[in-house]
Formats: sequence, C-alpha cells, structure tokens
Amino acid sequence: MLTVFAIPGIGEITEGDDLAAIIGDALVAAHPSTSRPGVAVAVLEEGDILAVTSKIVSKAEGRMIRAADREQAITDETVRVVASRVHPGGVTRIVENRLGIVAAAAGVDASNTPEGTVLLLPVDPDASAARLRQALQSRFGVKLGIVITDTLGRAWREGQTDAAIGGSGVRLIDDLRGTHDTQGRVLDVTAPAVGDEIAAAADLVKRKSDGLPVAVVRGLGHLLDTDAPGARILNRNGPTDMFRLGTAEAWQEGYAAGVAAAAGENHTSTR
Amino acid sequence: MLTVFAIPGIGEITEGDDLAAIIGDALVAAHPSTSRPGVAVAVLEEGDILAVTSKIVSKAEGRMIRAADREQAITDETVRVVASRVHPGGVTRIVENRLGIVAAAAGVDASNTPEGTVLLLPVDPDASAARLRQALQSRFGVKLGIVITDTLGRAWREGQTDAAIGGSGVRLIDDLRGTHDTQGRVLDVTAPAVGDEIAAAADLVKRKSDGLPVAVVRGLGHLLDTDAPGARILNRNGPTDMFRLGTAEAWQEGYAAGVAAAAGENHTSTR
Repeated sequence: MLTVFAIPGIGEITEGDDLAAIIGDALVAAHPSTSRPGVAVAVLEEGDILAVTSKIVSKAEGRMIRAADREQAITDETVRVVASRVHPGGVTRIVENRLGIVAAAAGVDASNTPEGTVLLLPVDPDASAARLRQALQSRFGVKLGIVITDTLGRAWREGQTDAAIGGSGVRLIDDLRGTHDTQGRVLDVTAPAVGDEIAAAADLVKRKSDGLPVAVVRGLGHLLDTDAPGARILNRNGPTDMFRLGTAEAWQEGYAAGVAAAAGENHTSTR
Repeated sequence: MLTVFAIPGIGEITEGDDLAAIIGDALVAAHPSTSRPGVAVAVLEEGDILAVTSKIVSKAEGRMIRAADREQAITDETVRVVASRVHPGGVTRIVENRLGIVAAAAGVDASNTPEGTVLLLPVDPDASAARLRQALQSRFGVKLGIVITDTLGRAWREGQTDAAIGGSGVRLIDDLRGTHDTQGRVLDVTAPAVGDEIAAAADLVKRKSDGLPVAVVRGLGHLLDTDAPGARILNRNGPTDMFRLGTAEAWQEGYAAGVAAAAGENHTSTR
C-alpha cells in the first residue's frame, strides 16, 4: 500500500528560511496529537520519502534573482542548446543545464515569482536533499528519503510530469537488471526510474497551483538506501543519447557538412 | 490523500479471458468481508481509478503472436522510424507505432512471454479501457476511471517509467491553462499529464516482476470525467514535435540535402 499526502500549512518561503524546520513544524501541526506527551503517533514513519518541490528549496537558498531579461538568465544556466523554436510568444529553448538535466528554459522559472524576478534551480539539489534529510531524520528519529522535484516536459508526449532532480537516501533508479521475470528469464533492460515515479505520484497531490510544495510518500521503504547516488544518474547524456540535437538543428548541421563536403569534392575534382 | 494498492491474486491471463470478471473477482477475494450479506464494505469506491498493465489486456485480447522474427513484428507495428542504433545486442529502434506512441521496439514485448512469441499492444487501448470501465462500474455500482499502462523509455533520462496508453472516464491531461498561480497571473503552460503520473504511481506498487498487473488509485475522483478524451491526447506528433528524427538520422537527411544542393549549384555554375 502506497499512500501519498501533501503537507498543509507551508507558507511562502523566502531566502534564509530554515526549510527543514518549516516542513517539520508543518508536519507536527498537521498531526496535533503528537504534541501530547506520551502519545506516540508518528508524524513521519520509518521509510517515508518526502517529495519537495524544488521551487521552495530554491527560494530558501536565495536563488530568486532580479532578471530584467529572463532570456539572459536561461542562457546563463545553459551548458548546451539541444533545440530551439521561435513561436509567436517568443523562443522555446530546450537545453542541457549545469545539472545535466535537459529541460525547457534550462529549468529557469518565471511563474509564481514576483514580476522582474526569476527563480533558478538549487545549486546542488542532491546536497539540498541531504541537508533536509539529516535535519528531519534527527528531529523525528526515523530513516527517511528525500526527493527534490521539478516539472519537466517530455519529447513526444504532451503535458508535463514531475521528475526527480535531486535526491538523498533513496534509490532513484531501481535497477532490476539481473532479476528474473515470471518465465525465469533475466529481465535485462528493466530499470524503473522510481525517483521520477515518486515525483509524479507526489505531484498528483501537490498540484502546483495549490501552494502544497511537500508531500509524504509512504510505503516505499524498500527503496531507502543511505548510499544511493544522487539525481545525476537519471540524466542520459553522451554517447547513449540519441537526441543530442533537435531534428531541425541536426538537419542544419548535416546540411552544412554536406555542402562543405560537396564543395571539397568539387574543389578536388577541378584541381 | 492518495492511496495506491495492487490487487493480488490475478493469475496468468490467456486469450479470451474475461478481464473485468477476473479483476472484479480478485478485488472481492482481497476484501472477503464484502461477500457477507448486509456488510457494505466498498471493494471499489466512487472515483477510484484502476491502472491496468497493457500486457494483461493484450493477452486477454489474443495479441500474443508467434514470431520467429521479433524484428519483423516490430516493423509491422511501426508507422514511422524516429531513430535506430546498432549495438552489440542488436538494433534499438525508436518508432512511432500505429497508436501514435513513440516507443522503443514499437511497444512490442518479448519479456514475460513464452519463447518464440511476442506480445503486441492492444488494438485500441481506449476501447479496452471503456469496456473494463463499463463492466466494473456495473458490477460494483460506482463511477470509475481506467488507465491502461505501458512502460516507456524517455529521451534524455535513464530508466523507464510507466505511462498511460489508454484511458476511459478519467482526464489524462489536467489542463490548468487559464487558471491562476499564487501571484494571480494566468498559468498558461501548465498541463500536467496526470494520466502518465497515475501510471507512474501505480507502477510503484505493481512492479513488473511481481505479477501484480492491476492497481487501484484512490483519491483522484476530481479527475473523473465520462467524456474525457482517450490517450491519444498524450501523444505529441506533427509540427510541435521537435524530435521527429534522432540526431543521427536528421543529420544524415540534412547531409544528403546539402550534397544535393551543392551539386545543383555546381551544375548551375558550370552550365
């Protein structure tokens, strides 16, 4: 049984806020019986995973910046442009950002922030997750996992889903390779991206527009692992990435190479 | 509060099985108290969504076929090749299949099936979902949603997640465009792909290798909608698809065009 519930009462977060304290207080407030002495109702249970919207992590860490030019902010976060497209409302840029995540607008967010500002992703979401985990584990005395989430578009599919961009204490890919299917054969390609699935499940209760940035995901204690790697393992970059460039961008590169090659041949043949 | 639980006791499914009856019986068996007269424990509650692995739908519908050549089965399901790559174990082909879904191997499955056979996706997963919904709604007297799920890889991200490839009675994209964020501005791009998020949440309890092909997703009654469109709305094809071809494939097309264009120019200049 998996249960997922949002934590009410987390207000607007601003730079310098102690996010672990605020989340912890909201958890206690949502379970008033725990404040009665001698009553052992668990606010958090052993094995709980907290899914925390990256937006509040960024705000607490002072990642909201003045940006007269949102496009410049996106450029600054970009390591590599994958694809871009001009449309009536401006330019959509799909890029790899400094965290290795391929995302529209590099993950720079201009919604739910005051005019003239943008919100950058946390500097190191895995480290943010680790700090939250340590503080909340200490306070509540249980082993936890933390997933930092962001909303991502997808190639070939409409709409967005939440995905894991940071994590601590929880396996984000549950590697089943080497296990067997019901026919006794090795399941050699199955590696569920459980970090992204946890983020998606949490999004179903958090709902961006409702101001519920944290959800408790209960019932996946088997995924907890103190030594689990961070969210970079969810990024596919390099030789196995078959979509390093958008179709138009790759075509243009090929076209230029074709023209150059033909010119070279022509040069050779007339020499 | 969202709760998700797998239904135990659904055995191996074969062609001609009445899937709604089997799922219904498994639900009742998992809640024995409901079989006592006068006891009104709800096996399914109003607003429940059942996430059903496409594999068992395919098996019930006789979509397991003899296939000496799995590659030919993939070709037969393919409408359009997006990208392919040769590697030591064979060829990975990412294609758009006849359902409009971009997937590796066109969604053709050779795991968990007997040697020499492959399992094709249901002919019309939305129709399969509608039939299941009608039958289970009639039996249990509650309004339900059905999501048919399959496991998909993603561009730029490692591992797989479950996604919705069929649906009935439930919104698969929860279009928030036109609603307002906490600053009172219109949230104009947010359209959570809740169908895929439901599939992902269900996968966390179903786990492919455990033989649990159906999960109940409870607490999302607000997404139920008798007139909701099917899963094709989750496919992004056509002009808005910036990844119609893999990088290598697009580059090759461009290269050929560049060579041809240069040859044409050369031809013109020497004429």
